Amino acid sequence: MSHHIAVIPGDGIGNEVMPEGVRALEAAARRFDLDLKFTDFDFASCDYFDRHGKMMPDDWRDQLGGMDAIFFGAVGMPERVPDHISLWGSLLQFRRSFDQYVNLRPCKLMPGIKSPLANRKPGDIDFYVVRENTEGEYSSVGGRMFEGTDREVVIQDTVMTRTGIDRVLKFAFDLAMTRPRKKLTSATKSNGISITMPYWDERVAEMAKGYSDISVDKFHIDILTANFVLHPDWFDVVVASNLFGDILSDLGPACTGTIGVAPSANINPEGHFPSLFEPVHGSAPDIAGQGIANPIGQIWSAAMMLEHLGHIDAGKAVVDAIERVLAAGPENTPLTPDLGGKGTTSELGEAIAEAI
Amino acid sequence: MSHHIAVIPGDGIGNEVMPEGVRALEAAARRFDLDLKFTDFDFASCDYFDRHGKMMPDDWRDQLGGMDAIFFGAVGMPERVPDHISLWGSLLQFRRSFDQYVNLRPCKLMPGIKSPLANRKPGDIDFYVVRENTEGEYSSVGGRMFEGTDREVVIQDTVMTRTGIDRVLKFAFDLAMTRPRKKLTSATKSNGISITMPYWDERVAEMAKGYSDISVDKFHIDILTANFVLHPDWFDVVVASNLFGDILSDLGPACTGTIGVAPSANINPEGHFPSLFEPVHGSAPDIAGQGIANPIGQIWSAAMMLEHLGHIDAGKAVVDAIERVLAAGPENTPLTPDLGGKGTTSELGEAIAEAI
Ligand SMILES: CC(C)[C@H](C(=O)O)[C@@H](O)C(=O)O
Ligand SMILES: CC(C)[C@H](C(=O)O)[C@@H](O)C(=O)O
Repeated sequence: MSHHIAVIPGDGIGNEVMPEGVRALEAAARRFDLDLKFTDFDFASCDYFDRHGKMMPDDWRDQLGGMDAIFFGAVGMPERVPDHISLWGSLLQFRRSFDQYVNLRPCKLMPGIKSPLANRKPGDIDFYVVRENTEGEYSSVGGRMFEGTDREVVIQDTVMTRTGIDRVLKFAFDLAMTRPRKKLTSATKSNGISITMPYWDERVAEMAKGYSDISVDKFHIDILTANFVLHPDWFDVVVASNLFGDILSDLGPACTGTIGVAPSANINPEGHFPSLFEPVHGSAPDIAGQGIANPIGQIWSAAMMLEHLGHIDAGKAVVDAIERVLAAGPENTPLTPDLGGKGTTSELGEAIAEAI
Repeated sequence: MSHHIAVIPGDGIGNEVMPEGVRALEAAARRFDLDLKFTDFDFASCDYFDRHGKMMPDDWRDQLGGMDAIFFGAVGMPERVPDHISLWGSLLQFRRSFDQYVNLRPCKLMPGIKSPLANRKPGDIDFYVVRENTEGEYSSVGGRMFEGTDREVVIQDTVMTRTGIDRVLKFAFDLAMTRPRKKLTSATKSNGISITMPYWDERVAEMAKGYSDISVDKFHIDILTANFVLHPDWFDVVVASNLFGDILSDLGPACTGTIGVAPSANINPEGHFPSLFEPVHGSAPDIAGQGIANPIGQIWSAAMMLEHLGHIDAGKAVVDAIERVLAAGPENTPLTPDLGGKGTTSELGEAIAEAI
């Protein structure tokens, strides 16, 4: 079985870490005898925007729709194109048009990575954030009135549907069923956001009825962020709306010290559309062009892609390789400066590819 | 000059920590020769709700409107009354009706309190979160359609006004001017929340023009929560919308280990209405009734109230007393169990009152 993968590096360090992600995939393909085919795309980048006045060609859905997966770098160059234009014109389009309604992000304390939290060691923190990825607070409904006057007012709707909530909850509950602790935590704010979030809570309670093996709890988002810091060991699978999931899936990796290396999967579970795999980090214009960006987020995303394509062993081999290289430490392996080493992006990518 | 203070303990541990807050105020009044008058109110509690079917009497505005300040405990007993009813029927009413549009919360690493972050010591973290407190994501506009069917949809509006944003920004910039570092950080999410948050950014940029001494930066809320954990020393004054401020002002105190002791002020800066002072912690039904709740959040809120009423020295004396008692440690002072001690709520309250 062959897989056709769209490669979209995007902006900034996306261009530097992407080759290492592909290198890891090629290494895994050799070892596990997989047939991976890659096609590069230059759109969904601010360079493309400069040339064409838009982030993507009109037929982007046709170009990408038939792919088996999208391997994505990072997008955004806020000095050149405002973020809400570059992101809504690319990444957020993919998520919506390809109905990638699950954004899945592991938060795992890895060997050799320093957690900013006191007294936590590998194994202590190991959970998933499951983020709703197509609706909720990220809506395009709303507008501005009395523009330019003192009465100016802006309004934006949060829109949640039963369909939208239930399907991501189902994914999260199913994921929790595969985990030893069988625990699910829901992020809410029903005490303050008094219309949408009580509805979210209702749907969680309803879904829970079908999963009597799962122990379910919920926290308001404010105290939940506090508990990520105070009690990260409490969590197993955390399910959240688009905005809350966005926050938790940066904060979780930050607590494990892995914000620069964390991966994410934007999944259309039914497989009607290609899913998209990308590092959690952004395009990092401040360090772009220096060859020092950490490629692990991109490579770990490759692992999630392999698992999604059904190659569980290959995915695990890539994560194992990352863990072994990290555990070897900066004296023995070319870790990038953010990990306390002196390696370049491509040296670290090569070391991981070899370990695979 | 005498001050008339409304005392509203609310629910749960609110009833246990409030007497200690009042005790501290009385101690400060004796030492600084202040004339404080207290009136107790039993509404804004779930007990009141049980008796009257509503959280407050119809004339609550008349009863409280003439007070010089409101000293508040905590509200909420979710097992008995859903949070969105108890909160929208009390605390959130106060904030809105009394136009307490600034919610001010210090995040400070205190002596004797263990931070969950590695290698941080008192002095390293010392910033304020300034939260917009009357509009934004906490709106009551929206509703539900196709109820009970698969097409069910809920919609809630975020509403931001120029007036509402500008006045809280002005407070935050003015506060930053009083601080040695003169630094202001704005919380945004203009890359995802594409209508309201770009407007927030615009108003920040506009306001900044009038404060050339202030160095201004901004972060998207996802990476900002990460930076609270990774680089808490970066921050001086952080200004945020209602929801983002809610999150940051729980996360900030969590990073300093002080979530159980942090105070907050809900301020109407013009003094047209009474301001309200309350601990950050909630009613904590799980430990209510045991006499072990930590009263420091309530007492520190008393200090903020004294400062607000113009008694800067008295406020500082209360904070000093808290710091001295904390620094003495659990062997020498009756710290509550959450601080590693064996003291009760009232023993710790008494120790602080004596230190004042
Ligand atoms: C209880 C709740 C409605 C409230 C809020 O979200 O404003 C609380 O979390 C706070 O921060 O004061
Ligand atoms: C870049 C931005 C629009 C995006 C989001 O908020 O979804 C990013 O933060 C992410 O988490 O993938």
